[in-house]
Amino acid sequence: MTETEAVVKSIQRPTLLVNESICRKNIERMSALAQRSRVIFRPHFKTHQSASIGKWFRDSGVSAITVSSMTMARYFAGHHWKDITVAFPVNLREINEINALAEKIHLNLLADHPAVVKTLAGQLKHETGIFIEVDTGYHRTGVNWENTDLIDALLETIGKSGILRFQGFLSHTGNTYSASSAKEIKKLHRTATDRMNFLKERYLSSFPDLILSLGDTPSFSMMDTVCDIDEMRPGNFVFYDLMQQQLGACSCKDIAIAVACPVVASYPERNELVVYGGAIHFSKEHLMQGKQKIYGLAVRFTENKWVPLEPAAPLTALSQEHGILHMDNRQIAAFQPGDLMYILPVHSCLTANLMGKYLTTTGKELDHMNRSHEPLHS
Amino acid sequence: MTETEAVVKSIQRPTLLVNESICRKNIERMSALAQRSRVIFRPHFKTHQSASIGKWFRDSGVSAITVSSMTMARYFAGHHWKDITVAFPVNLREINEINALAEKIHLNLLADHPAVVKTLAGQLKHETGIFIEVDTGYHRTGVNWENTDLIDALLETIGKSGILRFQGFLSHTGNTYSASSAKEIKKLHRTATDRMNFLKERYLSSFPDLILSLGDTPSFSMMDTVCDIDEMRPGNFVFYDLMQQQLGACSCKDIAIAVACPVVASYPERNELVVYGGAIHFSKEHLMQGKQKIYGLAVRFTENKWVPLEPAAPLTALSQEHGILHMDNRQIAAFQPGDLMYILPVHSCLTANLMGKYLTTTGKELDHMNRSHEPLHS
Repeated sequence: MTETEAVVKSIQRPTLLVNESICRKNIERMSALAQRSRVIFRPHFKTHQSASIGKWFRDSGVSAITVSSMTMARYFAGHHWKDITVAFPVNLREINEINALAEKIHLNLLADHPAVVKTLAGQLKHETGIFIEVDTGYHRTGVNWENTDLIDALLETIGKSGILRFQGFLSHTGNTYSASSAKEIKKLHRTATDRMNFLKERYLSSFPDLILSLGDTPSFSMMDTVCDIDEMRPGNFVFYDLMQQQLGACSCKDIAIAVACPVVASYPERNELVVYGGAIHFSKEHLMQGKQKIYGLAVRFTENKWVPLEPAAPLTALSQEHGILHMDNRQIAAFQPGDLMYILPVHSCLTANLMGKYLTTTGKELDHMNRSHEPLHS
Repeated sequence: MTETEAVVKSIQRPTLLVNESICRKNIERMSALAQRSRVIFRPHFKTHQSASIGKWFRDSGVSAITVSSMTMARYFAGHHWKDITVAFPVNLREINEINALAEKIHLNLLADHPAVVKTLAGQLKHETGIFIEVDTGYHRTGVNWENTDLIDALLETIGKSGILRFQGFLSHTGNTYSASSAKEIKKLHRTATDRMNFLKERYLSSFPDLILSLGDTPSFSMMDTVCDIDEMRPGNFVFYDLMQQQLGACSCKDIAIAVACPVVASYPERNELVVYGGAIHFSKEHLMQGKQKIYGLAVRFTENKWVPLEPAAPLTALSQEHGILHMDNRQIAAFQPGDLMYILPVHSCLTANLMGKYLTTTGKELDHMNRSHEPLHS
């Protein structure tokens, strides 16, 4: 029995497979981009949320990371990460947690609200880094890049605090996810970079060490060199997914995870195969292909890669545990209940968050923060 | 400090609140419907997935339950439930798990595929109940109700097995979820019931004890008496949610859960308030209100109920951890970062599955299967 056959045989229920080799290549590629661009690489760990996969980043020279919650910061700090930016607006209800962590590691927080900065200045007990979050066009969070009055006010409170160290300006270009072409993604990234540099020029004389930190996987996946920023924080690239593929940020061969789902029923009369694998495994994130919602895509699992079935067999509906694949009748005939189907996810961050653990294609179990309390083999 | 104030004060991050009193009322109401209709009440536990909430059902006289996975069956069997139907097509890769459980409890499985029934007949070691799943119009799983040739073949294999006990016909009327009116829901339920009774009439002489088992919360929430079926398996009614409210199956005051989310940012210039509470808390299930996607609805939390804010403040966008509420500017002004916002979920099953534990509005922590390995106070 080959290694792959042994892994396949061991699977009883929906299982998140990760191809370590593809994953490490994705990490190496992004790490190399940062190195040759002389930009700080502070990858976002919210996609994998795994101490084990974190080690693969360390192997690639990474020592500073980004997370999206204090819970995640505490988890990775517990796994020897000493330099963490929480790229989410400060949640003041976790002030004790923030203080506990700031005592142990180099912690950076985000702020865009005067009341939050004032509260932090009054309640933090240990020196803490602060990025001012800037809205460069995504309109989710952050100070509008032109609102220098508010930025001045925030800087004044930070400066007076004696405990907050201003790190620079941080922005997430999440608007690239709604772009319709590579050209548009590059344009959005350029606009964001220009707006960040407007701020750098304005504040550099007062803060000569300030850095510009920018996020998002689509932009950085399309670049040969990163220019005019100081730090990059992509996250999703570690696994990629169908959404990134649709955006042109990756191809299927770069997608590092797939969900192995037992086949449980088939209805050739309506071109449908049903798998054990539903909304609680994939999430309800979907893509549109014409008027059809797509929740995943069936692939063959070979030693080294996933190969989409032909004709394409998309996951077109999800209940809590049921997944419905639309398939050609000849394809359906090739599967029996009890066989496994491999399905690429639409949004790897949400799928990994739901699955809560990993099995590598060579048979190693890897942890995920969400189920780190569970015995590994349950 | 009141009980409610103490609970509110203790909340640091997104927390799934359950109002025990509303929840018990929902259980009592459905239980009473079953009792006065002289129908077996076998509630679906996939919504709450909680041994603690299971006890509230026991208090209401329930002794037989429905689940949607073997994992869930094992969990509840471990909490003294001895009569469990797994209302999901049998996953043959879990045959050892099935055998282990069938030895201990009264286990019912679903079948609609001859190969599955043959494999079960060959590999089961303990007497196990079998429902033939029937498709009465939802077209997800099950034998088409008119396909009596296939049903005859399944019954023959079941009969010869010596180990499979035929229980009857089971159907899930999930098509009620796409209905546009109460009238349509009732019509779909009537059609499903008629189709089930066609089978009962045909097979009753050979199987005088066969039962008809029907699912779905919307139908049973709209009935005064249940007629012409033997067993009802609704699940979502334990909590209800905005989807059920939109269908007319409940009103806001019947919704038993809400997510308490810390306010982290506000942007009055675009009528938006940002909370810590995103796709990994609510799921990406949404409703449409006109052309607007809705992921939740903000409410006030009083001692006894949730009251929607006026004007309505819907959750209109979700990232992994961010939730964006569309709000009136005067409402926004009433909230500061660090305050709590209470948000009713669109789909309570998926939200509870993601949150993985509960806090009652009177301050008790309740378990959920997904995080049953974790220490309760983490």
